[in-house]
Amino acid sequence: MLIVQKYGGTSVGDVSRIKNVARRVVKKHQEGHQMVVVVSAMGDTTDDLIKLAREISDNPSPREMDMLLSTGEQVSVALLSMAIKSLGVEAVSLTGPQAGIKTDEVYSKARIKFIDCSRLRAELGAGKIVVVAGFQGLNDNNDITTLGRGGSDTTAVALAAALQADLCEIYTDVDGVFTTDPRVVPTARKLEAITYDEMLELAHLGAAVLHPRAVECAKIYGIPLHVRSSFNNNPGTIVKEETDMEKNMVITGITFNKNVAKLGIFGVPDQPGIAYMVFKMLAERNINVDMIVQSSVRNGVNDISFTVAQDDLRKSLETIEEIIKVVGATGYTHDAHVAMVSVVGAGMTSNPGVAAMMFGALADENINIEMISTSDIKISCIVKNHEAEKAVRALHKKFELEEMGQCHCCAS
Amino acid sequence: MLIVQKYGGTSVGDVSRIKNVARRVVKKHQEGHQMVVVVSAMGDTTDDLIKLAREISDNPSPREMDMLLSTGEQVSVALLSMAIKSLGVEAVSLTGPQAGIKTDEVYSKARIKFIDCSRLRAELGAGKIVVVAGFQGLNDNNDITTLGRGGSDTTAVALAAALQADLCEIYTDVDGVFTTDPRVVPTARKLEAITYDEMLELAHLGAAVLHPRAVECAKIYGIPLHVRSSFNNNPGTIVKEETDMEKNMVITGITFNKNVAKLGIFGVPDQPGIAYMVFKMLAERNINVDMIVQSSVRNGVNDISFTVAQDDLRKSLETIEEIIKVVGATGYTHDAHVAMVSVVGAGMTSNPGVAAMMFGALADENINIEMISTSDIKISCIVKNHEAEKAVRALHKKFELEEMGQCHCCAS
Repeated sequence: MLIVQKYGGTSVGDVSRIKNVARRVVKKHQEGHQMVVVVSAMGDTTDDLIKLAREISDNPSPREMDMLLSTGEQVSVALLSMAIKSLGVEAVSLTGPQAGIKTDEVYSKARIKFIDCSRLRAELGAGKIVVVAGFQGLNDNNDITTLGRGGSDTTAVALAAALQADLCEIYTDVDGVFTTDPRVVPTARKLEAITYDEMLELAHLGAAVLHPRAVECAKIYGIPLHVRSSFNNNPGTIVKEETDMEKNMVITGITFNKNVAKLGIFGVPDQPGIAYMVFKMLAERNINVDMIVQSSVRNGVNDISFTVAQDDLRKSLETIEEIIKVVGATGYTHDAHVAMVSVVGAGMTSNPGVAAMMFGALADENINIEMISTSDIKISCIVKNHEAEKAVRALHKKFELEEMGQCHCCAS
Repeated sequence: MLIVQKYGGTSVGDVSRIKNVARRVVKKHQEGHQMVVVVSAMGDTTDDLIKLAREISDNPSPREMDMLLSTGEQVSVALLSMAIKSLGVEAVSLTGPQAGIKTDEVYSKARIKFIDCSRLRAELGAGKIVVVAGFQGLNDNNDITTLGRGGSDTTAVALAAALQADLCEIYTDVDGVFTTDPRVVPTARKLEAITYDEMLELAHLGAAVLHPRAVECAKIYGIPLHVRSSFNNNPGTIVKEETDMEKNMVITGITFNKNVAKLGIFGVPDQPGIAYMVFKMLAERNINVDMIVQSSVRNGVNDISFTVAQDDLRKSLETIEEIIKVVGATGYTHDAHVAMVSVVGAGMTSNPGVAAMMFGALADENINIEMISTSDIKISCIVKNHEAEKAVRALHKKFELEEMGQCHCCAS
C-alpha cells in the first residue's frame, strides 16, 4: 500500500517524540508499505516565530511571514528524516516547494493548485521514506507560501489525492473524533466512523482535530482518512463517504466555540443589495463573518445579526459605524462574549424534531438562546459564553451520546 | 552605487539589533544606493540546531543537516525584511536558492558554481532592498546545500562579483582587521588597508573576522571589501589588491592559533612517494593537515612533522599507527598542546632579516621554537601552547605595530 501519514506539532514536539514517530514510520515501511510522511512544526515553534515577527512589526508583510513560518516545518522534516535514517532506513526530507506543491498567490492562506509528483515518485521508487514539510508550497513567483492554520492536514490529504494513496492517516494527540470535547463531557464517546459532511460541520464548528479544508479535499477526491493518536496504537476514527455502524444515529457530535462575538444592526432598509453591501464592507476589511441571521420585515426595515471571532470585534465595530451611514440603518448592538453550540448529524435530515429536542434541552437548563441558524446536518445556537459548557453537557445527555457501559454518575 | 552588505550572526542577534541593521540599510538606500544585504543566522541559532541534530543522531546525514541549518538564515532574512518594510521602504527576502545561488553537490561545504542574477536584478530594478540568506545555495538535484562555516562572507562576495557591485561591506562585531588580537595585545592597531594576500594569510591563521574563501573570491574578482562594525560608524579595514598607506610596512599583522597539535614520524625511508603516501592516508580520513616540515636526510631516513587541529589528534594518532607499518618508519611522537604564532606582511619579501628578527624576539623571551614554516608573506612558528600570548605580545612590540599615541605602559 501507499500510505500518507501526517503528524501534528505535538506528535513531533521534542526529540524523543520525533524518534517515536520515526519508529512508527519505519515499522510500516518494513511491513512493505510505501510511506509519505507529512509533519508540522515542532510544538510551539510557529507561535514563537509569530511572536518574534510581532516584535519586529505590528503588521508584518504576509510574504515575509510565510518565509519565516515555513522554517518551522523544514526543521521538523530534517530532524525526522535524520531519525529515520539512524534506524537504518533510507529517507529524504522535502520542503513543500521541493515536493512539487504549487499554490496560488495568497500568502498566509494559500490554496494548493496542483502537485507535481515527479520528485515524490522518484524518491518512493528508490525505496525511500519521503518526509514532506506540511503547511507550505510555492507560488508562480517562486515564493514560499503557507496554507494557513491546519495546513499540514491539507498537505497530507492533497498528497494522498495526487499520489492516489490507499490510505491517509492523520496522527494527533487525541484518540480520534469524539461526540463532543471530552474535557467538557467526560462521557464523550470516540466515533468509529463519520461522514465527510459531518466531519466538515464538526471541523468548522471548533473540533480542532482535523482542518475543514483537509476534509473538503478528502471528500472531493474520496480519500478515506483515519484520525488517530501517535501516542498509542488504538484505532481512531475513519472519515469516509458513508458510514455503516452509525448511520442510524441522528446526532453524531456536539461542538462549541467560545471565541464568538455577536453584532446586530437595527433598522436596515428592506431593499435588494443591502445585505450584500453590509457583508462586502466587512469582507473588504478581512473580517470573517460566521453565523448570519436576518429577521423578518417590520415596516420596511430589517434587523441583521451576525457573529465574528472575538479578535475581530473591534475592527467590526469600526466597520459597523461606517455601514450604518452607508446603508442608513438606525443603530447597532453587540455582545463581546457569547458562544456557539451546535449539534451535528447526517441523520437529522430524516428525523424531524431534532431542533425542538435541542431547544427543549436548553430550556430545561434555563439557557437562553440568542440566535439560531440551521443547515442540512447541523443546528447552531448562540448562548451566553459562560453557559456554553452547561449547554454542551445537557445536549450530549439529551441525544444519548454517552460512552456505553461507562458509569453515568461520573459525567457531571 | 550598488552595495552588497553582509551582517554576521552577532549583528542580527536579537530583535533590537535587527532593527538597528534595518535602519543602517535604509539610510544607505535613501542616499540613493541599490542595496543587497546578506545575513547570517541569529546569534547561536546554528549551534542550537546542530545540538538538536546530535540528539537525534550521532552522525546526521549531511543533506539533512543542510536542510536543517539553512532555516537559521531564512528566519533572519524574513525578520530583517519585515523590519525594513516597517520603516516604509520596499524590501524582499530571498533564500539562497531563490537568489539563484547554484552550488556543487557537496553538502555542508558546498562551493558556489554560479549565480543566476535574474531575480536579484528584477527586485533591485523594482527599487527594493534585497535581503539574501547567506551560507546556502541549491545543487543540481534541487536540494539545499550550505557553504560551511563563514559561508555568509562567501555569499556576500560572490553576489558582489556576480552583480558587479561597487562595494562589498562585511559588518561584524569588531571595528576591522587588527595587527593582532586586541584581547591579547591591548595596543593592537586597526589596519586601514590590507592586501588580499595578507588578509588570506591572516584569515587562514586564525583571524576570525573574515573567512578565507570569501577573501579568495574577492581577490579573484577584484572586489574591494570593507570590514567594519555594525555597532558604530567607524571606518573599518579596506581589503584590496594594493594598499597605499601601509605598503612600506614590513609586517601587517600577527596571528596565533592555539587549537594545534603537533605530530612527528621518525625514520621515514627517504624514497619518492613516501610523503605522498603519508598525507594521502591522513586526507582519506578527512584529517586537515596544516603545517608540514620535513627535516634533511640522515642515513637515508627522514623525520616528518606536521600539525593538525586538536580535535583531529586522536584520529591522527590512529592513522599514524597504520602509516608507520605501511611506510616502514621507526616511531612517532606527539604534543597535544602547542600553538602556531605567525607574522604576516607583503613587505617581508623585500625585507631580509624578518625571520631573524622574529626568532630573536622569541629568544629574548626565552620561548622555544619547535617548528618553523615560511611562505612569501608569512613566517609561522610552533611554540608551547601556554607561551602563545607572550610570543604574540613580544612580536607585536618588536615589529612596532602598536597604536600610535597610545600609552605603551598599558600594553602589558
